[in-house]
Order: sequence, then structure tokens, then C-alpha cells
Amino acid sequence: MRIDLYLVPGPVSEERLADKTIVLIDVLRASTTVCKALQSGARAIIPVEQPGEAAEMRDKIGVEETILGGERGGIKIDNFALGNSPLDYTPEAVAGKIVILTTTNGTQAYACAKYSKNIITGGLVNVSRVAAKVAKSDRDLVILCAGDEGDFSIEDTLCGGMLIHKLMDEFRIELKLNDAASLALLLYRNNSGSLAPTIASGEHGRLLAELGFADDVRFATEIDSIPVLPVLKNRKIVLEEN
Amino acid sequence: MRIDLYLVPGPVSEERLADKTIVLIDVLRASTTVCKALQSGARAIIPVEQPGEAAEMRDKIGVEETILGGERGGIKIDNFALGNSPLDYTPEAVAGKIVILTTTNGTQAYACAKYSKNIITGGLVNVSRVAAKVAKSDRDLVILCAGDEGDFSIEDTLCGGMLIHKLMDEFRIELKLNDAASLALLLYRNNSGSLAPTIASGEHGRLLAELGFADDVRFATEIDSIPVLPVLKNRKIVLEEN
Repeated sequence: MRIDLYLVPGPVSEERLADKTIVLIDVLRASTTVCKALQSGARAIIPVEQPGEAAEMRDKIGVEETILGGERGGIKIDNFALGNSPLDYTPEAVAGKIVILTTTNGTQAYACAKYSKNIITGGLVNVSRVAAKVAKSDRDLVILCAGDEGDFSIEDTLCGGMLIHKLMDEFRIELKLNDAASLALLLYRNNSGSLAPTIASGEHGRLLAELGFADDVRFATEIDSIPVLPVLKNRKIVLEEN
Repeated sequence: MRIDLYLVPGPVSEERLADKTIVLIDVLRASTTVCKALQSGARAIIPVEQPGEAAEMRDKIGVEETILGGERGGIKIDNFALGNSPLDYTPEAVAGKIVILTTTNGTQAYACAKYSKNIITGGLVNVSRVAAKVAKSDRDLVILCAGDEGDFSIEDTLCGGMLIHKLMDEFRIELKLNDAASLALLLYRNNSGSLAPTIASGEHGRLLAELGFADDVRFATEIDSIPVLPVLKNRKIVLEEN
């Protein structure tokens, strides 16, 4: 299996994504929020790029059925019911609803859906479940790290490295890695004993703590705590049926 | 000293560059070519973005005084005297001349010159000289890796990591690093005993070898073999006077 990891969303083109399995990673916080919302009984998450798009989508689908979630600069968007804190996505808030979600980094990456039908949302909270799914496939893998406003972010790369490590060491798959995938693997192996503190002391982890979201950072780094498999079907993220 | 390293040129804005010392790194091959050309007696290198711009610049300065160098896709541009192979930049070819250079990744980054007056060209061939210069300054440092067509490339990040390592361990400067700078340092420290083979087996190293430029890769990884300090003055890269 060939694995191409991208540290930032920038240079990704159709040719690099077509017919691949794509794992989108935004540990802080969209991936974690998606997992938590689905675990809490949300029917689906619809990722959109802009807040205005979210409001339009809500009008189209119906106000009763939907709930708006999202942030800009880490902060809940005005008039949205929920922010991007996974802890807000309780069964009381989202069970039976369609969540329309827009975030600074994570939801933008779902635009790659135009190139592939196999798009999985991955975080540390579901990394083993994602690895098991990828391992069963014959397709090559692309790992897209959401990063932080166009920059590299350590938590997404660590999560990508952990996924690669599992495919290699637990599933014994022979892998061909691009430079960034090799780097992610090295980063993970050097920090595997201290993932949570490494992420908490990274740029994005520190920023979220300053904004009052230190609990989100801890929640997002609990490995395999939400073992769900969110996949994209017809623009909606849903739990894989099987 | 604060050090912000960028793995790819994408997200760099004025705010992040203003008043900083900026080290531009394109180990394969523009940084190495610039060092070699200046060592061989070129009066200056003028980095330009497009081949057409290079030809116009040559007409403006004068055909006798100038020589065109550059590549696209690793290959010498038609009608240019030189490619981007540092080994071509011999005293016979360039002494006394102004080289007008355009490359896929490396020369694009000099556009950041509009934000800072302190732009140094760094490679493995002059890394200790660059470290000594940076260490003497009170300014914060930005390390811009040219990368490979928008992707991360291992050789530039290793070189950035080596520069940070030297500032920390040899010059004993107290550093505050962004996530990518920490990553580069880790990458360097994990590969410091095997820089040349690690780079040769990276994506860009393999590509250049396939194109017949394996000697360039070896040349570019000879640490401190060309201890010059190329700085940008009035759009021209020249040897620092002192």
C-alpha cells in the first residue's frame, strides 16, 4: 500500500486523490467533534465551508431537523447553537438531528470529496477503528492533515503517524511512504509515550487552552475513546453501515 | 530568540516576516547553486519567478554582463546557458557575471523580500556560516523551506533543523520554537548521522537521481563545503561584505 500524507491541505490535486481512500484528520477539533456527535446519535453531519452556506443549508433541509455548529478563530459563531467543542455534542443536543458544521480548518478539507468516494474522518479518538478499515482495503491511502490556517499542526501529524504505525506494526502491511508520511511516523514514534502532553504544549493546544478549551484538548487526545467510523456519503458524514 | 519555521511556502504573510531575519532554504538545488555561483566569482544572482522575466531582465542589464540559469521540472530551460545544477556554475561559466536564475521552488521564495531586508540563502553547504550570522543578531528568525511544488521536502526541513540545532547547542541561544521548528529539530537529530543517505532516498533526491543529477544531490549534502554568506541587497543576491 502506498501512503501519501499531506501536512497541510495546500497542494492536493485530483490526480493525487482519485480512487484513493482519504482519511481527513483535524484532531483539534473537527474530527473529534464529528465522532462525538455521531456517537451521541446525530443522524449526520454536513460539513460546509462558510457560515452563510450553513444557514442556507438549514433552511433547505428544515429548521426542526437540523442544528448549526461551528467556529471561527476557535469561538462559536454568532447565532449558531453549538461551537466546535466536542463536549457540547451531547445526546440531548444532537440525537436525531442533522448537524451542519463549519470550522476554520477541518470542514474545508471535505471539498476533496469531489475526487474520491472513500472519505473517512479520523482522529485520535477513533484511530484504531480507522486503521482496521483502511487495512481491509486494497486502495492506496491519502492522509490529509487539516493543519492550522495553512500551517503544519503537530496534533494532526501525530495522529497520521499513529495511523501509519498501526498499519505497519499491527496489520503488518507493507507500506510505501512519501516524505511527509515518513516524517509523521518518526514524529509519532518519538512521542508515542507522551501524546497528550505533546499536543497540549503545541501551538494549537496552547491557543485552545487560552480560549478556555483545555478540556477539549484532553478529550481529543483520549486514544480510541470513541471507536466509530464516520464516512462521507452524498455530502453527509454518517456512521458506516455494516 | 523566536524561530518560526515553515515547511512549505504557503501560509507566509507580511506580519510573520516583517523585521525578522529570513533564511530561505532550497537544498535541492537553488540554495546550493547560489552558493556555488558566488564562490565561483559571480557578481550577483538575481532570482526571478518566470523564465520570461529572466529574459527581460537580461535585455535590461545587458547581454554581455549576464547569464541565464534555471530549470522547470528539474530540466534546463530552453535557450538558457545553465540549468540548476550547482556543478555547472564554475568560475569559467560565471566569474564576473550576473546570473539571472529562475527555478521551480527556490527562486519563488525571494518574493518575501518585500517584507524584510534581512534575507539569507541557506543550504547544507553553508549552514554553519548562516548559523554564525543569525546568532549575532537580536532579530527573531523565520526559516522558509522551499519544499517541492507546494509539498514538504525532507532535505529543506533537515537543513532547517540543523540550523536550529546549531543555534541551540553550539551558540547556546535560548530559543522559542513553533511546532514546525520543533519538528525540524527532531527530524535533524534523528538523522544527523545519516543526512546524505536520508536525503538521497527522499522523494526529491530520488527524482533528481532519475533525471541524471545524482552528483548534484551528493554535492548539496556536503556540509559546510562552501562557507559563504549570500544575502539579498536590492533584489540581488551577493556575498555579504565584511
